[in-house]
Amino acid sequence: MPEGETSVAIDAVETPLHPPTRVLLAPGPSELDPEVLRAMTLPPLGYVDPAMLRIFDELKALLREAFQTTNEFAIALSGTGTAGMQAALCNTIEPGDAVVIGTMGYFGERLAMMAERLGAKVTRVDAPWGTPLDADRIRDTIRKVRPRVVGVVHGETSTGVVQDDIADIAAAAHEVDALLIADTVASLGGHPLDIDAASIDVCYSGSQKALGAPSGMAPLTLNERAMERVRKRKSPVSNFYLDIPALEKYWYQGQYHHTISAPLVYALRAALLVLHHEGCEQRWARHQRNFAAFRAGIEALGLTILAAPQHSLYTVAGVLLPDGVDAGDVRKALLDDFAIEVATGLGPFKPRMLRIGLMAYGSQVHFVLRLLAALEDVLRARGHVFEAGAGLAAAQARWQTP
Amino acid sequence: MPEGETSVAIDAVETPLHPPTRVLLAPGPSELDPEVLRAMTLPPLGYVDPAMLRIFDELKALLREAFQTTNEFAIALSGTGTAGMQAALCNTIEPGDAVVIGTMGYFGERLAMMAERLGAKVTRVDAPWGTPLDADRIRDTIRKVRPRVVGVVHGETSTGVVQDDIADIAAAAHEVDALLIADTVASLGGHPLDIDAASIDVCYSGSQKALGAPSGMAPLTLNERAMERVRKRKSPVSNFYLDIPALEKYWYQGQYHHTISAPLVYALRAALLVLHHEGCEQRWARHQRNFAAFRAGIEALGLTILAAPQHSLYTVAGVLLPDGVDAGDVRKALLDDFAIEVATGLGPFKPRMLRIGLMAYGSQVHFVLRLLAALEDVLRARGHVFEAGAGLAAAQARWQTP
Repeated sequence: MPEGETSVAIDAVETPLHPPTRVLLAPGPSELDPEVLRAMTLPPLGYVDPAMLRIFDELKALLREAFQTTNEFAIALSGTGTAGMQAALCNTIEPGDAVVIGTMGYFGERLAMMAERLGAKVTRVDAPWGTPLDADRIRDTIRKVRPRVVGVVHGETSTGVVQDDIADIAAAAHEVDALLIADTVASLGGHPLDIDAASIDVCYSGSQKALGAPSGMAPLTLNERAMERVRKRKSPVSNFYLDIPALEKYWYQGQYHHTISAPLVYALRAALLVLHHEGCEQRWARHQRNFAAFRAGIEALGLTILAAPQHSLYTVAGVLLPDGVDAGDVRKALLDDFAIEVATGLGPFKPRMLRIGLMAYGSQVHFVLRLLAALEDVLRARGHVFEAGAGLAAAQARWQTP
Repeated sequence: MPEGETSVAIDAVETPLHPPTRVLLAPGPSELDPEVLRAMTLPPLGYVDPAMLRIFDELKALLREAFQTTNEFAIALSGTGTAGMQAALCNTIEPGDAVVIGTMGYFGERLAMMAERLGAKVTRVDAPWGTPLDADRIRDTIRKVRPRVVGVVHGETSTGVVQDDIADIAAAAHEVDALLIADTVASLGGHPLDIDAASIDVCYSGSQKALGAPSGMAPLTLNERAMERVRKRKSPVSNFYLDIPALEKYWYQGQYHHTISAPLVYALRAALLVLHHEGCEQRWARHQRNFAAFRAGIEALGLTILAAPQHSLYTVAGVLLPDGVDAGDVRKALLDDFAIEVATGLGPFKPRMLRIGLMAYGSQVHFVLRLLAALEDVLRARGHVFEAGAGLAAAQARWQTP
């Protein structure tokens, strides 16, 4: 290549890097406990070092606790939450399979799109964005279609809606011998979930949300019923990188498959230990409490959260902005003037919704206060009228309510 | 789940983690520059933070330099080198396509296996492990089969052999309008390669070898010819996680695809800056010099390296052990008694070969000396006869030869 060309570009590189310090209150990646950051600088290990394989055993136990399962198979994929979705589908679907996907937002849509790309005949059951799926409608569809696989989202990141009745959907799937896949990327570690009680067969998540690790690993668990299905496939999984039988040989017998990232493994372990020491019940309660205070603050400013309280995740909120206030503009102001990262809406809600994540280390009183105070300033500057401090006071009042 | 069961398992967890400090001289992951480790503790950024998108632009320039290319498309996948292989194949192959794969070791075999799983009709051209492919044989096969895609390995991690004449293979592929994919997982950043000069269309690597970053990202570049092919596919890529058109929209237009891992991005940037400041030519020369000294030391101990000098990578060596000395036993002794990680052979060479990586930060005089000294001790204890210090002296003599 022309030497000069590259050099010019690279001379502009700031070295070393000084990224701005942000408060990460979007629906992921979320704030990291300092212990998690520190873990990444521990001495790296090779991918089959006996010490690494011992850490795998610890991770399996810690992941089972997070998933609330007794499944033997519990690992973390070397990829993000999207890799978790890809793995759940590509291992269980064979081309031509009938599949039922429930959609109530962007990630349900993504499930359907991915299943179609894998050659499945997909029947969709759609709920309007902002509400959960109707379990009766799904059951009827499952009885009619008799699919091999049913996929639903437990916590829909795009809307802040939770699907609390997955046990009913799982029961319908099992009537016709289908596997039930549940996406818990936005819920695991922050919103109550017991996947064994719900009879979920395949469950995946991402490391970077309510689990409180950096992005890059995707927790995944399958029960024995799902493992049997994967083992009895007619054809091997076309995606070798995410092939569960090969990953099982790696995580359970130390047989090389890929070079796992030691820093990410250390960070995930540290994050799961934080969860273990806090306890799932306490952690869910903390998320619920801080989310309720945030909702009270938002409502005191005259705004609404898309999901009704009874269908609302404790981790992610879709805040609807006043008419005439642009979500992209508010997002930019929060980032530029307050160093707070939030997200805009996805799909139809892009221009009029802010998406807020209060997850893991980020679900703390002081982060909620900082966000509400900044939002008050930004909204007031854009002509929205409310009593100064109303959001903060309402949140505080909510925390003080037993 | 039964509360007690999980708790017992997790009580055994050592907290916080104290992994043993290893010297990583296996063929990956390799030793990390302290600057690379430190980069991972910088404040994380969100996946579409303007500051993150600026880092993407820096990474594109730095990756182009490492690949020695003027290709516009140069990104890093969120996965390991195996994800790079998966992405190269799944984006360019459609079911039923004729594909020619050259194999000269484990990773060539993996290319063939992956291509078959993707529904390709694979014609293999095999070379014995330890030698490169015969370019004439590949050319003849390509002319006969007229494939859509040809895949070869530039640096074969399982044998330490380099395929230096990729330009000839690429020319044969282009005669029949096939794309040429080259695996540079074990070579990029340590062994001379100019992918534009060689007319390689699709090239991938891993972050954790001669590039000197932790595992978890896979550099990938496609020339315009390959991008056109991907854009004109009859069907979308079945693997959405590694879908190049979607990744192009993310890396070039900031459109959400997945939540990239900020710590891994920072680490890769730091590692590529180390490469930039050293310069490719100087870096290749350093790897060549230290590898030659290591070879001299090994030969002075009466051992041989599988690859002949003219076909030898500067990054990875396959050391053949004396009869009656077991590679697994030697590996364990080096790890337990000297804290040095090396690997055993793969496939047929498993019991009688050690695989050594001297890459990135790990390609330094003091690491070579430490390894040779430990090897002398371990081999002597197993009855192999040589003059004490012969390996160290030979390496030193080689370094002192201009």
